[in-house]
Amino acid sequence: MPSPETVAARLARVREHARGAGVDALVVTHLPNVQYLTGFLGSAGVVLVLPRACRLMVDFRYVTEAGALVAHLGGLVTMATFERSYDEAIVDLVRSEGASRVGIEACYLPVGRFNGISSSLAARTPLPLDASLPALVPTERLVERARVIKDDGELDTLREAGRRLARVAEQAPGFVREGRTERAVSWDIEAALRDEGFSRPAFETIVASGPHRALPHARPTDRVIGLGEPTVLDFGGVYNGYCVDLTRTVQLGGFSGPQARLYAAVREAQQAAIQAVRPGVTASSIDAAARGVLERHGLGEAFGHGTGHGLGLEVHEEPRIARLAPRVPDAVIETGMVFTIEPGAYVPGIGGVRIEDDVLVTDHGCEVLTR
Amino acid sequence: MPSPETVAARLARVREHARGAGVDALVVTHLPNVQYLTGFLGSAGVVLVLPRACRLMVDFRYVTEAGALVAHLGGLVTMATFERSYDEAIVDLVRSEGASRVGIEACYLPVGRFNGISSSLAARTPLPLDASLPALVPTERLVERARVIKDDGELDTLREAGRRLARVAEQAPGFVREGRTERAVSWDIEAALRDEGFSRPAFETIVASGPHRALPHARPTDRVIGLGEPTVLDFGGVYNGYCVDLTRTVQLGGFSGPQARLYAAVREAQQAAIQAVRPGVTASSIDAAARGVLERHGLGEAFGHGTGHGLGLEVHEEPRIARLAPRVPDAVIETGMVFTIEPGAYVPGIGGVRIEDDVLVTDHGCEVLTR
Repeated sequence: MPSPETVAARLARVREHARGAGVDALVVTHLPNVQYLTGFLGSAGVVLVLPRACRLMVDFRYVTEAGALVAHLGGLVTMATFERSYDEAIVDLVRSEGASRVGIEACYLPVGRFNGISSSLAARTPLPLDASLPALVPTERLVERARVIKDDGELDTLREAGRRLARVAEQAPGFVREGRTERAVSWDIEAALRDEGFSRPAFETIVASGPHRALPHARPTDRVIGLGEPTVLDFGGVYNGYCVDLTRTVQLGGFSGPQARLYAAVREAQQAAIQAVRPGVTASSIDAAARGVLERHGLGEAFGHGTGHGLGLEVHEEPRIARLAPRVPDAVIETGMVFTIEPGAYVPGIGGVRIEDDVLVTDHGCEVLTR
Repeated sequence: MPSPETVAARLARVREHARGAGVDALVVTHLPNVQYLTGFLGSAGVVLVLPRACRLMVDFRYVTEAGALVAHLGGLVTMATFERSYDEAIVDLVRSEGASRVGIEACYLPVGRFNGISSSLAARTPLPLDASLPALVPTERLVERARVIKDDGELDTLREAGRRLARVAEQAPGFVREGRTERAVSWDIEAALRDEGFSRPAFETIVASGPHRALPHARPTDRVIGLGEPTVLDFGGVYNGYCVDLTRTVQLGGFSGPQARLYAAVREAQQAAIQAVRPGVTASSIDAAARGVLERHGLGEAFGHGTGHGLGLEVHEEPRIARLAPRVPDAVIETGMVFTIEPGAYVPGIGGVRIEDDVLVTDHGCEVLTR
């Protein structure tokens, strides 16, 4: 549970972004954002951020849990519950709070709900004569922009999660033994995650073996892992709500031949990217550091994805560490960001290699959390 | 992988619903709907359903997998890939196919994407002089309406999944032993799911013990389960892509006292609801059968949720088996629907009891899949 001070600081940042977007209220429907602003962990809930109040709307299932949370936060957040639906509750609350320009999260709120809330806001009367009808305003990243810089409590959690995930990574190569299937290995990894205190895997564990499993995303199958095959183990865990993510590539019988050369090139690319991380550089320059190494090894085409992604309450969040792309802003790296560095190369007939660690940006470079 | 005949029949149903909604194309972005229409299992993908074609759009990661799928479907579905983003690919494809009223899934497409696609469709020129600009039309349930009646292959899968889940349910009470925590029990249940061939849990396994854990949704904690406490075990698995879901309530030392009376009432409510299931009845009448029993036992207030939910590619889908509510249509039960029956009663100081099984509606009643 975040402390009242932490919640106050987060709300202050989001209110500042909301002012910048020209809205006097923000309806937060994306659950990780709800969790960030209030600590609420339920499977449904909506937050309304106002200049001088913050309301957490929950349905009957979560009244006890949310009540305890609100008491802990001592007035920073108050609870609202309701009889019918979240969207009717949003309309009622927006009107009773007198908000006029109401931001919504355009990347998440479905257009059907947007239209329904909009028309309810427009339809309900009476209003005071001098009041204008409240209007919904699509906004983006008002909470995510705050989330991208982790606060001290989050950094402690992510450091601890990284240490625990590194311990799972030490065990993981031992799970890959002759005659075992990808699926059996993935179960061992998930059991190890639990033994290390993770509440659940952060995503479906990937175990991809063999010269023809050269795909960046692959579900574990009943295929038996063979000798001399690179096998990608990509797994993550959720620890106290925060996600960490790691990939190792192992080869039964040890690396040799073209697989060994592939492995060395990817390792070199990862090191180059990690060394490129520091405040003030662009995300695309970190990607370029990895990509340049792979290109020099003739593997530019074999690296088909980005170099990394942010970590936090979600396993894929900002910043995006990737090539420059049209109409996608290039992040500037700042102290307190946490993200993965995971170059890979996938060569049909040889196999796939990917190596991934998690880094925390410090004032002068970065700290690798997963070793 | 669904057969070409199955996919053809599904597409025919969805095209009929699309015609009924007055659209000449449907952009399907909700992944379970993408999977239903094409068998595609990737983590991203969009389907465009046209009167005489169906295009599966995938990004570079899934070209191999989608290519094999499309070959298997023999021309019913064709693949489209792209360089930049799904939404630009949607715009290009809508224009090249000459669609004019383009349905989107209003319950899922975020308003930001809706606005972006709309304005791109309006902005791009040139068009033939007599052509009107294509417009996006919010639609609802065009694919879900087809999904609610399972076809033969789906019924076979769900029957097999139900048998396997029932075997896990037989083992589950044995996991609840003195001195064990909720979390340890949940891990045993998830291991048993895997041993029974489920690819993953259908949701986070619930193990909720004790007189104060009277909440319908509760994450397993490190609490040690005590003697004389009802413990709710709610778990599900995904088998060949399909979800089944089951709840048992057990009590260490056996049921006695007020817990035994609570258990008997919930059991009676569940039986009454199962007996009420047959084609032609309303969903709310099934809910009323369970609720009536609990009300007669003075437990009406203690049953705060609905009686059940549909099962299929998602663990919560149509039909909704619940009380009549304003502006929510009451489903009419049809042969081939599959849903849960899960009444519960939660009494602070005594505890929570919930019993859940999955039923398949037959011509004259229902088949219980999970026993």
